[in-house]
Amino acid sequence: MRAMTVAAGLIALPAIAAADPLPSWNSTETKDAIIAFVDAVTDPASEDYVPEADRIAVFDNDGTLWAEQPLYFQGLFAFDVLREKAAEDPSILTSDPLRAANEGDLEGVLAGGMDGLVEILDVSHGNITPEDFKARAAEWLATATHPQTGRPFGEMTYQPMLELLSYLRDEEFTTYIVSGGGIDFIRAFSEDAYGIPPWQVVGTEGNTSYALDAGGTPTITKDGGVSFVDDKAGKPVGIMRHIGRRPIFAAGNSDGDFEMLDWTTAGEGPRFGLIVHHTDSGREFAYDRDSHIGQLVRGLDEGPGKGWTIVDMAADWKTVWAE
Amino acid sequence: MRAMTVAAGLIALPAIAAADPLPSWNSTETKDAIIAFVDAVTDPASEDYVPEADRIAVFDNDGTLWAEQPLYFQGLFAFDVLREKAAEDPSILTSDPLRAANEGDLEGVLAGGMDGLVEILDVSHGNITPEDFKARAAEWLATATHPQTGRPFGEMTYQPMLELLSYLRDEEFTTYIVSGGGIDFIRAFSEDAYGIPPWQVVGTEGNTSYALDAGGTPTITKDGGVSFVDDKAGKPVGIMRHIGRRPIFAAGNSDGDFEMLDWTTAGEGPRFGLIVHHTDSGREFAYDRDSHIGQLVRGLDEGPGKGWTIVDMAADWKTVWAE
Ligand SMILES: [Ca+2]
Ligand SMILES: [Ca+2]
Repeated sequence: MRAMTVAAGLIALPAIAAADPLPSWNSTETKDAIIAFVDAVTDPASEDYVPEADRIAVFDNDGTLWAEQPLYFQGLFAFDVLREKAAEDPSILTSDPLRAANEGDLEGVLAGGMDGLVEILDVSHGNITPEDFKARAAEWLATATHPQTGRPFGEMTYQPMLELLSYLRDEEFTTYIVSGGGIDFIRAFSEDAYGIPPWQVVGTEGNTSYALDAGGTPTITKDGGVSFVDDKAGKPVGIMRHIGRRPIFAAGNSDGDFEMLDWTTAGEGPRFGLIVHHTDSGREFAYDRDSHIGQLVRGLDEGPGKGWTIVDMAADWKTVWAE
Repeated sequence: MRAMTVAAGLIALPAIAAADPLPSWNSTETKDAIIAFVDAVTDPASEDYVPEADRIAVFDNDGTLWAEQPLYFQGLFAFDVLREKAAEDPSILTSDPLRAANEGDLEGVLAGGMDGLVEILDVSHGNITPEDFKARAAEWLATATHPQTGRPFGEMTYQPMLELLSYLRDEEFTTYIVSGGGIDFIRAFSEDAYGIPPWQVVGTEGNTSYALDAGGTPTITKDGGVSFVDDKAGKPVGIMRHIGRRPIFAAGNSDGDFEMLDWTTAGEGPRFGLIVHHTDSGREFAYDRDSHIGQLVRGLDEGPGKGWTIVDMAADWKTVWAE
């Protein structure tokens, strides 16, 4: 295995002797493909050269840049906030999904469907300024720990993907997060965790309002509810709204990213679609077609035919967790 | 302090002293206030120093960066597109506002109220990809000419404001447009006219959808209608959605910008609020309290008390139109 990948590397990339931009990636075809793409679009002599302003790279977050099992971390955060609020005022638990979340009963929550989840988000995420919400989320991410790894949730990011983000930025790409998760939740940690500032985060949005508070101070408030769902077909729409230009590189891990990758790679000129396939039950988790979180079917079936690169986490990643 | 620096520069480094960042601004208190603010927030030794990532400057567009009389240029564009479509298929003129727009009857259009305007935007701006729409708008801006000045509409920008944008960017500010106008319309010319890329444009948004076209190609379509109005209280909300951070500098010209300036300047630390007051009937237009376009009442009455700087176009600007 090692001998074979070294040989492949020598054939494909004879000049890559100096600094390795992706040290946590094994020397496999996946790594070669990423580097070959970046080399091509950044080489002014290449017919695939892309000007810097068009080097837009978009990344899904949950399951692509950090873990998402046993449940999206934002959901676990919402449960904790709800429990805290209910301890002070149990009368807020007005429905079965809210009571289930308060008891940490995931099945009970899921039985409430989308309406139940929105109700939980309303109660846990609403009636707060974006700044206070971000501070609260940042504190949770730094202190609450993952049940399996014991790491703070904010450190459940993937070292190889952090290197990929840095590598692309070093090559004058602009990196964006395009996530089904809440835009304010992601902004609470994206700058520290990924080096991605708030204005390069696209996500699901809640209702937000502006008013003078009782003291006459201009105040923006998160009112709960959902005004835009940045998932599936919403991802290309969200990209067009926020960025206004089609990316040339898109990375995801589930069928929620299918439309984003499909639209990205259908553009003219060189394009790169990347899917993180969770194959590593030892170091992380193994799931795809039958998972209730991060389900991946079409990406595996149709992605290779579209030229997308499927990352085999177990084989392609030397390390998993952020160092 | 600044005078001393300039004097020292005249003796030692005349080339530096000669560089005026705002040559089209007269030497008035307005220009002094702008330069003093920029000097303070960019001087690491100043207690008002602001790190580069927080140097966010937002600009209204119509009446602030370019003209808006006798009607928002996007409205004139919509009328032209509608006329063109109606010439091919008169049956699209199904209502009084549509027929009025087709005849260039501004009063008839305004009689239809907001519903009538949305109808005109639906018919003129809908059922097209954002890319095709931007190409169509860019062509119109380069060829259609303003009834009074004879300039192409795309050249009805203000030279002093172009210099202000460049000056702020040279001082490591990031400049955004935050406009009640349509986001795709502004993106059609913001990069060429202002050096502002599409991802730094916040504007009113229409419904947009993603689907595969008949040939299976991923396609984004503008569907008409309005999903977000980036005006008045919508401006701070739009800023929080797109940028995710409160600006330190905001410029506008009408009461549609009041909330944006109020929220910006209510923040901690050094802040700058600027209002362009249209006082120049000779070179441009003179209008404020009673205008149906760009009405300015609260800004004049309350702005000075809030520390905002009111630009007297006739007195403060050496030149008006882009050179
Ligand atoms: Ca995902
Ligand atoms: Ca305006």
